[in-house]
Amino acid sequence: MSVLNEISQLIGDVKGKKPLVHHITNYVTVNDCANMVLAMGGSPVMADDLAEVEEMLAFASALVINIGTLNERTIQSMITAGKKANQLGVPVILDPVGVGATTLRTETAAILLKEVRFAVIRGNMSEIKMIAGLNVQIKGVDSIASEENGIEIAKALAVKLGSVVAITGAVDIVASLDHVCKISNGDKMLADVTGTGCMSTSLIGTFAGVTKDYFLAAIAGITIMGLSGELAKERLTKDQGIGTFKVNLFDEISKMSAETLLSRGKVE
Amino acid sequence: MSVLNEISQLIGDVKGKKPLVHHITNYVTVNDCANMVLAMGGSPVMADDLAEVEEMLAFASALVINIGTLNERTIQSMITAGKKANQLGVPVILDPVGVGATTLRTETAAILLKEVRFAVIRGNMSEIKMIAGLNVQIKGVDSIASEENGIEIAKALAVKLGSVVAITGAVDIVASLDHVCKISNGDKMLADVTGTGCMSTSLIGTFAGVTKDYFLAAIAGITIMGLSGELAKERLTKDQGIGTFKVNLFDEISKMSAETLLSRGKVE
Amino acid sequence: MSVLNEISQLIGDVKGKKPLVHHITNYVTVNDCANMVLAMGGSPVMADDLAEVEEMLAFASALVINIGTLNERTIQSMITAGKKANQLGVPVILDPVGVGATTLRTETAAILLKEVRFAVIRGNMSEIKMIAGLNVQIKGVDSIASEENGIEIAKALAVKLGSVVAITGAVDIVASLDHVCKISNGDKMLADVTGTGCMSTSLIGTFAGVTKDYFLAAIAGITIMGLSGELAKERLTKDQGIGTFKVNLFDEISKMSAETLLSRGKVE
Repeated sequence: MSVLNEISQLIGDVKGKKPLVHHITNYVTVNDCANMVLAMGGSPVMADDLAEVEEMLAFASALVINIGTLNERTIQSMITAGKKANQLGVPVILDPVGVGATTLRTETAAILLKEVRFAVIRGNMSEIKMIAGLNVQIKGVDSIASEENGIEIAKALAVKLGSVVAITGAVDIVASLDHVCKISNGDKMLADVTGTGCMSTSLIGTFAGVTKDYFLAAIAGITIMGLSGELAKERLTKDQGIGTFKVNLFDEISKMSAETLLSRGKVE
Repeated sequence: MSVLNEISQLIGDVKGKKPLVHHITNYVTVNDCANMVLAMGGSPVMADDLAEVEEMLAFASALVINIGTLNERTIQSMITAGKKANQLGVPVILDPVGVGATTLRTETAAILLKEVRFAVIRGNMSEIKMIAGLNVQIKGVDSIASEENGIEIAKALAVKLGSVVAITGAVDIVASLDHVCKISNGDKMLADVTGTGCMSTSLIGTFAGVTKDYFLAAIAGITIMGLSGELAKERLTKDQGIGTFKVNLFDEISKMSAETLLSRGKVE
Repeated sequence: MSVLNEISQLIGDVKGKKPLVHHITNYVTVNDCANMVLAMGGSPVMADDLAEVEEMLAFASALVINIGTLNERTIQSMITAGKKANQLGVPVILDPVGVGATTLRTETAAILLKEVRFAVIRGNMSEIKMIAGLNVQIKGVDSIASEENGIEIAKALAVKLGSVVAITGAVDIVASLDHVCKISNGDKMLADVTGTGCMSTSLIGTFAGVTKDYFLAAIAGITIMGLSGELAKERLTKDQGIGTFKVNLFDEISKMSAETLLSRGKVE
């Protein structure tokens, strides 16, 4: 069965199982992440206090850790929740937002990578290069790194960490220990909405809640976000702009069907 | 005068008085809650630090306490603000998001119910059953409980706590010490947007800011949310989805008129 | 060159330089502020922990401090970041949300004004009067103060603090040490969306990231927000309301051109 066929089936699995996706995430894009999970058919829960994260995981099908806004309180919760998820066999997805921009982010990512086994790590090229220990220029949370050699970088990091590694950009790359693929869906307007990276990570978490094939889950989340971006752009009229694009994006996620994915998905 | 006539008049009262609705709420849906209050004609204020919650209440017409994301700092603020509101005669509305899902949520709700008199408590069936001490299965913050016996459960809890109790679901139930009503407005797409429960609670708070009849305030908030959901759905075209639905929902709240409410409200 | 010509050129400068605008802001409107900066062509970053704010400033072209939701942790970060920005020559913009409503807000604003030099301070009439030490009635975070004598108040405060002072309302006023101007763009629906004040401040921060003329940056941010509000309102059809207005607002910001600004801007 083709990859597109396989991820098409995951759409139905999410709507059937309605996986609970526990997030410890930033306060900037948290609402959009929750609505993404719902639009796809999952059930989001955001809980970040140390006193409840382990208990909440008892019901969860996946845990998303996003370091977009950090503080001492939530860092502790991330570590504790990540370890507990590992014990329970709940897949953990990492979005290392802005890693490298500050020591706090870099050290937090390092501690998380040391203490927690991640099923998938998704970042932009700057973030993934930083995690891979490569030389990279950082400016805030938006990537300014060259996208050359993405496949090699993703593969090497996947092997080093034993996680699926996804790099999103003009072309997206997903690598596991023994596979790699490129996804060519997407539209550059996606970069003009804050948190589309975070939202992709939340979609990966949603799919990781219904399959143990995390390589497939990562491809599903990224392909569906990119394709929805394309469709959102196509519906824009001349007098519309980024506000309507974002609304359309959520429309397209909620309407995404196996048929659309099979006919428009560009995974190789 | 019919209930629909009475709640129709409250719409004008809100626009005339512009009640300040103080929220101590979660960071997931806080923006939508603020925009809901504004769309209805009220004035929202979100302030959660212990150092300012009592002072902010001096101007407030209602206080909404929503436990969607808890931490030690905000729990203290909730208790202190709730007690102060009781002293000042400011009605307090509770949204016990995800109570039962974790000990932190359950214990926080228990402390709040012990220390604060609530004018209205609004939750989904899982949450209300949990507060009523009934046996219930919990999974995250979305309800999976059976909606049978809602009227009996709401009435018993209203009597036990001396609060108006509202259960929202396929059919909504509102009970006071001596009255009960069912509301049949709504659309299932409302469950696919995060925070429509929170937003209903914020609308109840807005109406509780202009009437001492909190039973009526609860009916008003819930009916208007449900009816706006219906109207939002009716305007959807075939190529639209959940993003446009949410936009339409805010449109309909802001346009809600006594006429629409009288002709389309389903309160019995 | 006219003021409108000058601010028209800033639009291109923002898209060319993509200034990083560091925010320490409230959790209510943070997502909209980030999306505003992106829609205009800047790059937003939200980081509020004391452990990283100074380091993040190393890349920043401007710092926006918004006191919409305060707590002890973020107050320290605001003071430290503001001082560091002063050292680095990064312009700091203050949005004193709800100052006067509580002692915490009033004292925090006072400390910030004592410890940090602000390039621009933007508030509604209640907030600016409060900062100017004038007698003013406060209710929550929405202004209820008279808009009389705005020019005198703004000029006096600009001289006293050595900052550009902007008062937004039915007519907006911007004053520097030696200049003052009035902006007549805008639509009253802007007041029905939470955070349009915060978003204006974020736009000012974005423009302050590409020019050292902070008087001009303030005029640019406020004029573009007001004009986008007008255009957003003009596109509304009869069956639409505040939800669509907000979407249109982001559309218009992202589409704003020098031509539109030159033909429709009302700056005198």
